[in-house]
Amino acid sequence: MHNDRLSLDEIARRVDAKAPAFCASSDRIWAMPELAFEEHGSVAEQIAMMEAEGFRITRNVGGMATAFVAEWGSGGPVVGILGEYDALPDLSQESGAVGHAPLKAGAPGHGCGHNLLGSGSALAAVALKDALEAEGIAGTVRYYGCPAEESGSGKTFMARAGLFDDLDAAFCWHPSVVNEVQSTSSLACIQAYFRFRGRAAHAAAAPHVGRSALDAVELMNIGVNYMREHMPSDARVHYAVTDTGGSAPNVVQAFAESLYLVRSPHLPDAERLFERVKRIAEGAALMTETTVSVQITDATSNVLPNKVLQEAMYENMRRLGPPAFDAADYAFAEKLRKAAITEEDVLASVKPHDLSLRTKILHDGVLPLPAREEVSMGTTDVGDVSWIVPTVQCHTACFAIGTPFHTWQLVAQGNLPAAHKGMVLAAKAMASTAADCLRNPELIARAKAELRERTGGRAYVCPIPDSVTPDDLHRRAA
Amino acid sequence: MHNDRLSLDEIARRVDAKAPAFCASSDRIWAMPELAFEEHGSVAEQIAMMEAEGFRITRNVGGMATAFVAEWGSGGPVVGILGEYDALPDLSQESGAVGHAPLKAGAPGHGCGHNLLGSGSALAAVALKDALEAEGIAGTVRYYGCPAEESGSGKTFMARAGLFDDLDAAFCWHPSVVNEVQSTSSLACIQAYFRFRGRAAHAAAAPHVGRSALDAVELMNIGVNYMREHMPSDARVHYAVTDTGGSAPNVVQAFAESLYLVRSPHLPDAERLFERVKRIAEGAALMTETTVSVQITDATSNVLPNKVLQEAMYENMRRLGPPAFDAADYAFAEKLRKAAITEEDVLASVKPHDLSLRTKILHDGVLPLPAREEVSMGTTDVGDVSWIVPTVQCHTACFAIGTPFHTWQLVAQGNLPAAHKGMVLAAKAMASTAADCLRNPELIARAKAELRERTGGRAYVCPIPDSVTPDDLHRRAA
Amino acid sequence: MHNDRLSLDEIARRVDAKAPAFCASSDRIWAMPELAFEEHGSVAEQIAMMEAEGFRITRNVGGMATAFVAEWGSGGPVVGILGEYDALPDLSQESGAVGHAPLKAGAPGHGCGHNLLGSGSALAAVALKDALEAEGIAGTVRYYGCPAEESGSGKTFMARAGLFDDLDAAFCWHPSVVNEVQSTSSLACIQAYFRFRGRAAHAAAAPHVGRSALDAVELMNIGVNYMREHMPSDARVHYAVTDTGGSAPNVVQAFAESLYLVRSPHLPDAERLFERVKRIAEGAALMTETTVSVQITDATSNVLPNKVLQEAMYENMRRLGPPAFDAADYAFAEKLRKAAITEEDVLASVKPHDLSLRTKILHDGVLPLPAREEVSMGTTDVGDVSWIVPTVQCHTACFAIGTPFHTWQLVAQGNLPAAHKGMVLAAKAMASTAADCLRNPELIARAKAELRERTGGRAYVCPIPDSVTPDDLHRRAA
Amino acid sequence: MHNDRLSLDEIARRVDAKAPAFCASSDRIWAMPELAFEEHGSVAEQIAMMEAEGFRITRNVGGMATAFVAEWGSGGPVVGILGEYDALPDLSQESGAVGHAPLKAGAPGHGCGHNLLGSGSALAAVALKDALEAEGIAGTVRYYGCPAEESGSGKTFMARAGLFDDLDAAFCWHPSVVNEVQSTSSLACIQAYFRFRGRAAHAAAAPHVGRSALDAVELMNIGVNYMREHMPSDARVHYAVTDTGGSAPNVVQAFAESLYLVRSPHLPDAERLFERVKRIAEGAALMTETTVSVQITDATSNVLPNKVLQEAMYENMRRLGPPAFDAADYAFAEKLRKAAITEEDVLASVKPHDLSLRTKILHDGVLPLPAREEVSMGTTDVGDVSWIVPTVQCHTACFAIGTPFHTWQLVAQGNLPAAHKGMVLAAKAMASTAADCLRNPELIARAKAELRERTGGRAYVCPIPDSVTPDDLHRRAA
Repeated sequence: MHNDRLSLDEIARRVDAKAPAFCASSDRIWAMPELAFEEHGSVAEQIAMMEAEGFRITRNVGGMATAFVAEWGSGGPVVGILGEYDALPDLSQESGAVGHAPLKAGAPGHGCGHNLLGSGSALAAVALKDALEAEGIAGTVRYYGCPAEESGSGKTFMARAGLFDDLDAAFCWHPSVVNEVQSTSSLACIQAYFRFRGRAAHAAAAPHVGRSALDAVELMNIGVNYMREHMPSDARVHYAVTDTGGSAPNVVQAFAESLYLVRSPHLPDAERLFERVKRIAEGAALMTETTVSVQITDATSNVLPNKVLQEAMYENMRRLGPPAFDAADYAFAEKLRKAAITEEDVLASVKPHDLSLRTKILHDGVLPLPAREEVSMGTTDVGDVSWIVPTVQCHTACFAIGTPFHTWQLVAQGNLPAAHKGMVLAAKAMASTAADCLRNPELIARAKAELRERTGGRAYVCPIPDSVTPDDLHRRAA
Repeated sequence: MHNDRLSLDEIARRVDAKAPAFCASSDRIWAMPELAFEEHGSVAEQIAMMEAEGFRITRNVGGMATAFVAEWGSGGPVVGILGEYDALPDLSQESGAVGHAPLKAGAPGHGCGHNLLGSGSALAAVALKDALEAEGIAGTVRYYGCPAEESGSGKTFMARAGLFDDLDAAFCWHPSVVNEVQSTSSLACIQAYFRFRGRAAHAAAAPHVGRSALDAVELMNIGVNYMREHMPSDARVHYAVTDTGGSAPNVVQAFAESLYLVRSPHLPDAERLFERVKRIAEGAALMTETTVSVQITDATSNVLPNKVLQEAMYENMRRLGPPAFDAADYAFAEKLRKAAITEEDVLASVKPHDLSLRTKILHDGVLPLPAREEVSMGTTDVGDVSWIVPTVQCHTACFAIGTPFHTWQLVAQGNLPAAHKGMVLAAKAMASTAADCLRNPELIARAKAELRERTGGRAYVCPIPDSVTPDDLHRRAA
Repeated sequence: MHNDRLSLDEIARRVDAKAPAFCASSDRIWAMPELAFEEHGSVAEQIAMMEAEGFRITRNVGGMATAFVAEWGSGGPVVGILGEYDALPDLSQESGAVGHAPLKAGAPGHGCGHNLLGSGSALAAVALKDALEAEGIAGTVRYYGCPAEESGSGKTFMARAGLFDDLDAAFCWHPSVVNEVQSTSSLACIQAYFRFRGRAAHAAAAPHVGRSALDAVELMNIGVNYMREHMPSDARVHYAVTDTGGSAPNVVQAFAESLYLVRSPHLPDAERLFERVKRIAEGAALMTETTVSVQITDATSNVLPNKVLQEAMYENMRRLGPPAFDAADYAFAEKLRKAAITEEDVLASVKPHDLSLRTKILHDGVLPLPAREEVSMGTTDVGDVSWIVPTVQCHTACFAIGTPFHTWQLVAQGNLPAAHKGMVLAAKAMASTAADCLRNPELIARAKAELRERTGGRAYVCPIPDSVTPDDLHRRAA
Repeated sequence: MHNDRLSLDEIARRVDAKAPAFCASSDRIWAMPELAFEEHGSVAEQIAMMEAEGFRITRNVGGMATAFVAEWGSGGPVVGILGEYDALPDLSQESGAVGHAPLKAGAPGHGCGHNLLGSGSALAAVALKDALEAEGIAGTVRYYGCPAEESGSGKTFMARAGLFDDLDAAFCWHPSVVNEVQSTSSLACIQAYFRFRGRAAHAAAAPHVGRSALDAVELMNIGVNYMREHMPSDARVHYAVTDTGGSAPNVVQAFAESLYLVRSPHLPDAERLFERVKRIAEGAALMTETTVSVQITDATSNVLPNKVLQEAMYENMRRLGPPAFDAADYAFAEKLRKAAITEEDVLASVKPHDLSLRTKILHDGVLPLPAREEVSMGTTDVGDVSWIVPTVQCHTACFAIGTPFHTWQLVAQGNLPAAHKGMVLAAKAMASTAADCLRNPELIARAKAELRERTGGRAYVCPIPDSVTPDDLHRRAA
């Protein structure tokens, strides 16, 4: 039967064949950590790898110099595999050290494992291509080089540019401490500045002619705190006050600014809640006889889980089994745990997955899909992709259980053999599930039907207004 | 010279001639205390007195059954003397008792001396009429029977009805513990209900569908408290919360109401401030997704002092001198002070006038006009008359120094000889100053010029909206 | 085998034998609806029934004249069955009428079906006694007559008095529109008055000497609204403002009061949250230079579900099957639904159970136990019993689907044949599960182990302070 | 009579004799503008002048390197004349230019005329010394070199060090646009940081474990805004928010800080109000479970006017008459007014003095003492001196009417002939009034009696806590 030509074993073999090259590529990216929107070297590395494999490259997509698409094949279903490669500030760390040992003080480091993320996804795309090519099967394979996940919502801008519109399924992963198909959704978020303008005056001599923008910021905050009683329990609204109008108490503050972050498990709910927050801002302006302007600066959609694809991917992971960690992998993980991982870290690390893992050092199983869909209280720009095309993600064990993210402890493990093994497993899980889609159109049809049901037929609308460009976010982050 | 025909001595003689009858009338009103808008017996008593003196009576003026105008004469300048006759709840008290001794438990009493106020003003009008009649001098004398000063703004409704429009000067007095021409202005005030309507919901099970009107009331209050820093120091804004939407915490409150009182030394400023308060209410409604309606329920203009008339009246009072209290008057005042007046009462009583009076029992002088115009932090419906016609008021010593107003201590003195003496002095001061106006048109001209300057040319606009009737206030007070 | 002597069939037969008498008793209580703490007639009725059956009566327990315990037997496990009998105000209604038809305007009515509740539980106790007696089995059966569930937390006071301390298992039910074992927990709640005392002053003339208690109430509310961001999502804090210090804006309010209701799925969390609310109140007092006093007026523990007993009871209900409603039952239910039940009522009625029931008129099945434990956003004084002894409850279909609770529509059905059938089913479910406990000590042991795990070993502490008596709550409710 | 030996004419002659030298000294200070606490060159210049005149110098007084005392004589009454010499940032300007023409961009300039202030006061001290010396009269004359008036409260630190304790009278002046004895008092002020510390947490994932310091800052502000209704109308409380705890909305803010400024016409009232503000801060900490620390960073006492000395000084100024401005003075003033002074500047300039001056270019009269004592809504460290010793100040016309303070327009006039003339007049007014005190002990006695009455017998307590040093203020200002 034709389906056998893209069997799990076949895909796994092809992944293994190219794994050494892509692990080496991952290590090179680990060694040149670059911040969001500035991943020029990492992108050059990735493009070189994909060009060598015969992929067609489109650079500078979505208005970002470090976003690209690598494509192979034509016709047939179109599957996309998403990669990332941005690092985090101030996390430089020597590989394999179990104490804090920056390679270069103050320099960035791959504290979220995105060197693995990009290379593992590229490996999956290449292995899938190899299989299609060898078997002469029609189909289109894309690798999306997605910048600025940590700060900047690269995929959201790519989604706005329509780059995912013709995909039939999308695949992604994230390096982790466990092996599992990700089943949780995430929060949609909208972030905006509220800027109030009033009238300055001498606060003691002529307070009645002043109109305080700082008062407006405070009254808006009060209004929002009153709203909390009357909003859904699973939504979140937070703020920072980013400009208080100066440090002189004896001047009525003529300008003040706050930054609001509105989140909800469902984008339309986040939008409705954001409208309420805007009305509160207008109320605060009315109360203080000031004016207010609102500027949305960032937004991402919630992740829409896809049970159909999750089950397909889980079946593959179950059959693949966990990475084959060896004694050296365990020895290092144990050493690190003793030296630099607390019991609290361990608890926090396993809590979202399975508390019984707390006695383990490295994950030696594959977690089952949970009966109930949970919402993770975070946000990711994968959410926007998931509103356009059925999307599935997995986690694989690349790091010792208990490793906190965004720390030097994680950086120290980012190019070790254990991390490579986790990355290879992820590539297999993604490529094999993509292969399932290619050989089984009905799977795509069911996944798309589920997506339609989850969106309620609402077409994707990018939550970042057209007036906001990646450059705006880059500038602000800088 | 013709002016001599209305000399101070002449007027004083004519007042003395009719004083016994009007003191008796005052005592009858003292004996039938009636609340605001319900002064039917007192009005009948007053009308009988004025009809007997040949005045023409117009009843039911300004939309109030207990408001009337008594007029004598024709042509010439038109002078008006204002009287009141409403009592206060729960102040029934035996005359001349120095302990609390209600004649009828829970019944009203003349705790502000309005029995004297109405009768003294009527006496002044009659004495002036007698003088004009005897001398054959042209002129029109009016006595205004003004109800509901304590609660209801009778004069404001009379002003709205245009009853003071053709007056050339107005005169008024108030029983007091001192003899003086009143020089202070008062606060203009606007009082209004703010009613918020939201949506009820079970506060635990479905709080996010509720919209809390109580939240709106609280946010409005917060907004106003923030405004305080940015409003003039001499303005005042206060509130009561008159409906909290129920006593069940587990129901989102669908209705709530507050009552605001906005005051300022100048009516246009009070109006501007009231507009700001309304904007804050609208802001609170926006913040809570509720609706708000505003209902003005009472308002009075500030008193515009008239220096020209004050100086004329002071000259008369200075020449008339204080009431001639005798040993019996002093004996009773001393007994009352010992029994029922505290040192704090005394201090509070003399503070607005002259602290050096604190050692006196009854006032035996006439206070000079102060160099500087002060604002008294109260409100009176005389304010509305004063925006239409030059108006002057005096105080005369009717009560022991230290007697607090709105107490049984004051009621107990309201028909004693000392009170009569003070009332007769006030009648002389008003009638003689009115006589000055009649014989000296230039005095009226100068007083009117001062009024024009103080209003800045702004025509009188009644601060109570046409939609609010005296019946509304009467009903609410009941 | 000895266990067979208390088989489900045997118990069911004994319930059926006494059912007519207890249905008649339920109808008599329906006909004399009495409010919380005033159920003297209903208690007399119940005591008469139980005495006739040979139960020993202890009156006036827990400090309440309408609380009693009826006990039979000795030794062996001690099982308790809980009954209620209080009615609701203003719900008088003719039986079997499909329009609002009060028997006596303004009089109470059994709008929550507690006539059935008490009689059904008594029936269960009696049937169980009959079986034990007939078979000569050792064991103690208690019926608890629990007053004031609707308003007053009768069981909480009984728990405080230690009346449930020696029980091995407790059983309860509630008339409903469906047949199911109750699996949800409920919220623990603490309700308290916060009373602030400041200093009155004239708001315009001397505002700076006033200290506003109303300000304190508002600031406490603000503080609590700020706390919302920092409290668990599933907790609830609500308030009503129960005294605003008067309706006069020109007086600084010297007294003000609010009523707070703090709820959480777990009593210790509710207690911690209540401590935070108290600190906020103290903060508000500090801010305003007022004083605050706190008075807890009511509190109940959350229901601790007991899976062990739920599964035992579900097995019995599954085998018993739904009540055998006949054509007449359906005909009336249909008539009522057409006349006086809206589609929204139906939706609200089935939502907590199973939305697919919305097309049914009467429930003709038994709902399975759900996979996941939910928290119902309500409170009940059964919670306190459930912290002391393993407790299980069932619902049986006594009313047409869609009947809203606390309405005349429910009162109208309270003594009809369908209601009797539901009550009899409940008696069978409770008695048979209690019998399971008596014949199977291991069941009790497992149920107790589960309870220990759920309390974390914390001994029951009554959330109502000792200083608050049932009389306090009775007086306040009156 | 011996008094004649210190007559006004005599003093004036002696001032004129030394005027050229001190005008030159003033010009040198004008040419080396130095900021608060950094007036090393200016102090060297002043000390050189005073040493040359035979004064004994004490350096580094009050803990400040640029504070000094110059003393002459011994015994007799001790009179002190206060001088200042600090400049303002970024006001460098060419002398005599009527357009903005910085001598050095960004450099300081004498925008408040303190070059004149210090030199004029020194001139007065020297002239008085000359007179005493010539006539052989006993007495002690001190010149106080007071740094950091603009920012740092130099005199307050000198007062704390006891440097004014043995003075019998103090004299001061300020360059101005009018000639008058200053009659107004000023506001006492206390400035403090309120620092709140809470606990950080992820705002979406674990908000309930966070304790927000930003919430505490906001709640404190709310509490203060509620207090406004209940504080005296003439007090002032303002704040700036100086640290909001970061710009990331998704982190609960663990630190936040505000800067409060509390002012009142009377220091004890300011202290009481400050205590209330502190209690509000504690309330906010309680409400949010954060901690708060308070750090007073600056404070000055209100100016206690001294009518006795004011009248003495006014008599001298009246006799001295205004400066004799010539055509060139007028020509320049007119040119400047046309080029760089708006009508609003003129209005603002004359408003505190006499609106009728608005048509004048230079002041050609001496304003009378007003009948009523006003409070100016500013603060000055002369206030602290005035609580210790009877103190009087004058203003003299050194600048064109309409010149705003703290502008290049003022700097441009600071060494012109008109400014010199005003400075000389001030020296005469101070020296002659000090001479009055020396020859007339009864004047000192009456002035001291007035001071005692105004303080109510309260000894001077420095409002800056001992823990705050001038270095603290210097560092913060830098």
